[in-house]
Amino acid sequence: MDPRARREKRPSLLDSRGRQPKRSQQGGHMEKPIGRTRWAIAEGYIPGRSNGPEPQMTSHETACLLNASDRDAQVAITVYFSDRDPAGPYRVTVPARRTRHVRFNDLTEPEPIPRDTDYASVIESDVPIVVQHTRLDSRQAENALISTIAYTDRE
Amino acid sequence: MDPRARREKRPSLLDSRGRQPKRSQQGGHMEKPIGRTRWAIAEGYIPGRSNGPEPQMTSHETACLLNASDRDAQVAITVYFSDRDPAGPYRVTVPARRTRHVRFNDLTEPEPIPRDTDYASVIESDVPIVVQHTRLDSRQAENALISTIAYTDRE
Amino acid sequence: MDPRARREKRPSLLDSRGRQPKRSQQGGHMEKPIGRTRWAIAEGYIPGRSNGPEPQMTSHETACLLNASDRDAQVAITVYFSDRDPAGPYRVTVPARRTRHVRFNDLTEPEPIPRDTDYASVIESDVPIVVQHTRLDSRQAENALISTIAYTDRE
Amino acid sequence: MDPRARREKRPSLLDSRGRQPKRSQQGGHMEKPIGRTRWAIAEGYIPGRSNGPEPQMTSHETACLLNASDRDAQVAITVYFSDRDPAGPYRVTVPARRTRHVRFNDLTEPEPIPRDTDYASVIESDVPIVVQHTRLDSRQAENALISTIAYTDRE
Repeated sequence: MDPRARREKRPSLLDSRGRQPKRSQQGGHMEKPIGRTRWAIAEGYIPGRSNGPEPQMTSHETACLLNASDRDAQVAITVYFSDRDPAGPYRVTVPARRTRHVRFNDLTEPEPIPRDTDYASVIESDVPIVVQHTRLDSRQAENALISTIAYTDRE
Repeated sequence: MDPRARREKRPSLLDSRGRQPKRSQQGGHMEKPIGRTRWAIAEGYIPGRSNGPEPQMTSHETACLLNASDRDAQVAITVYFSDRDPAGPYRVTVPARRTRHVRFNDLTEPEPIPRDTDYASVIESDVPIVVQHTRLDSRQAENALISTIAYTDRE
Repeated sequence: MDPRARREKRPSLLDSRGRQPKRSQQGGHMEKPIGRTRWAIAEGYIPGRSNGPEPQMTSHETACLLNASDRDAQVAITVYFSDRDPAGPYRVTVPARRTRHVRFNDLTEPEPIPRDTDYASVIESDVPIVVQHTRLDSRQAENALISTIAYTDRE
Repeated sequence: MDPRARREKRPSLLDSRGRQPKRSQQGGHMEKPIGRTRWAIAEGYIPGRSNGPEPQMTSHETACLLNASDRDAQVAITVYFSDRDPAGPYRVTVPARRTRHVRFNDLTEPEPIPRDTDYASVIESDVPIVVQHTRLDSRQAENALISTIAYTDRE
C-alpha cells in the first residue's frame, strides 16, 4: 500500500497545523487542543549555587508550558512548601500557539521563591496546555539535567 | 477577545488556591484535589558512595510527595526487593497543603534500606497526592540527577 | 502453580510478536498496537555548543518514535516558539515495526530549528506510535542527559 | 480531626501490604495489583564505551520491572530497530512481590542487543507490572543518568 495514499485518508489530522495557521487563528474549525488544565510538579528545588556562564548555566528550575490552542492561556501557579502556607498564585500568560519556558527563579510576584528549599507546584490554566518540568543543576563543575512531563489528572 | 474577560468565566479555577486558604482549611468548598492514592516507582537504588559536601551532595533517592488537598495525608511506603520479602510499611504524614520530599536514605522504621541494592516501591495514601521520584548520584566527581513522575493507575 | 502453565492461558499475548513477524506483516490478526496518534513535548532547546567527538557527543535533542504496528506511520511534527508562529509540519515516516530516533538538529524542511532557542513540539501520526524525548547536552566538558515519555491525551 | 481516626476508616488500604505477606501469598484477598500488562520504551541505546569501575559504572540500559502482585509474572520483551525486523521475545520471570532490574546489556537469548545502535522495546506481562527505564552513560569521565516511567496504554 502506498503510504501517501493512506495519509490522504486523514487530511484533517496532518493538515490541521502549520499549513493554515491564519485560518484557525481567525476562529476556523480546530480539533480539541492537546493538553489539560491542571498539572502538578511534586519535585521543586532551586540550587543556591551555580558554575559556568550566566544566565544559561545558572542553576534553575523551569516549567515549560505549551499552549497549542488558538486561545491565549491564563495560567496560575501555586507553590507548596514543607513548613508554611502555599505562595501564589503566580500569574503567567501563554499566547495562543506559543510555548513559554517559565523559570521559577524569575517569579517574584507576589514573592520570590527561596533557594535551597524543597517545594512543589500546581499549575492551572483556563485552556488546555502541556507542562514539562526541567532543572539545570550547576552546583558542581559540570551541569546535571532532569526533565519529566508533569502530572495531570485525566478524568 | 480580552483574556481578562475570558478568565472571569472560570473564577473558581484560578481563585481556588492562595487567595482564600483559610476558608478551604476551615472546610469550605474545594474542587477535587489533584492526584491519586496509589503510586509506584519501579527504579530504586541508593548508591553506597558519595562525593561533595554533606548532606546536599550525598547520593540519595527521594520520593517527592505533594498533598494539595485540605486534609493531612497518611502515607504508607512498601519497598520491594529482588531476593527477599518486601519491607515496610514505612509511615509518613504529609500535612494538608504541604509537600514532603522523603529521602529513602532516611527511612529506618521498621528497617533501614540497604545501599547498593536494587529495590522498588509502592506508595499508598488515604487522600490524593502526587509523587515524583528523584535521585542524586554523586559516586563520581560530578553529580548526576534523574527525575520522573511516578506511575499511578488512573482507573 | 507452574508458571509455564499459567502462561499457556494467554498465548496470544506472549506469542503475538517476534515469533511470527511474517504473518502479521502479511495482514494476519494483530491486537491493537500500543501507543497514540498525538503527542506533545513542552521542553525543547538545542544547545549551540558541544564538547566531545562528533556526531555522538554533539549536543542534540531527539524524539524517539516507536511504531510497533503493522502499518507504516506518516508523522507530522509542528514546532512552537515563544515569539513567532509555529514551524512545520516536518514530515517523517516510521516504517511498520521499526523505531526512528529523530534529531531535531537534523530537521531542515521547511526550515531548520534555531539553536539556543526555547521551543516545544506536537507530534501527530496516522497510526498509533510511542514518543520519548531525549536531550544530550555537552556544552560543558561532561555530557548531561534527560529523557521522558512525551505527553499524550488518552481519551 | 485526628489523622489516626481517619486512617482507621480505610484499614484495607494501608494494611494490605507488609503486615500480612504470608496470607496474601497463600491466596488470601488482595486488591487489584498496581500496573499494566503492556509497556513501551521508545528510547534505547547502549553506549559502546564506559569509564569507571565494573560493573556498576559500565554504560548500561535497564528496564526496572516491579511485580507487586501475588503471582509470578512471565514477561516477554521485544526489541525494535530502525533497519531490521524486531528481535525477541526475550523472556524474563519476575517473582510475586519482587522487583527485577533487567539490563538490556545482559540479554543474550535469542540474540545479544548490538551496542551503539538505536532501538526501542515493548514489554508484555501476563500479570500487571510497573516498568521504568533507566540508562547510565559513562562514555565520558563523569556518568550521566536518565530515567522515566515507561509508556502504557490505560484503556
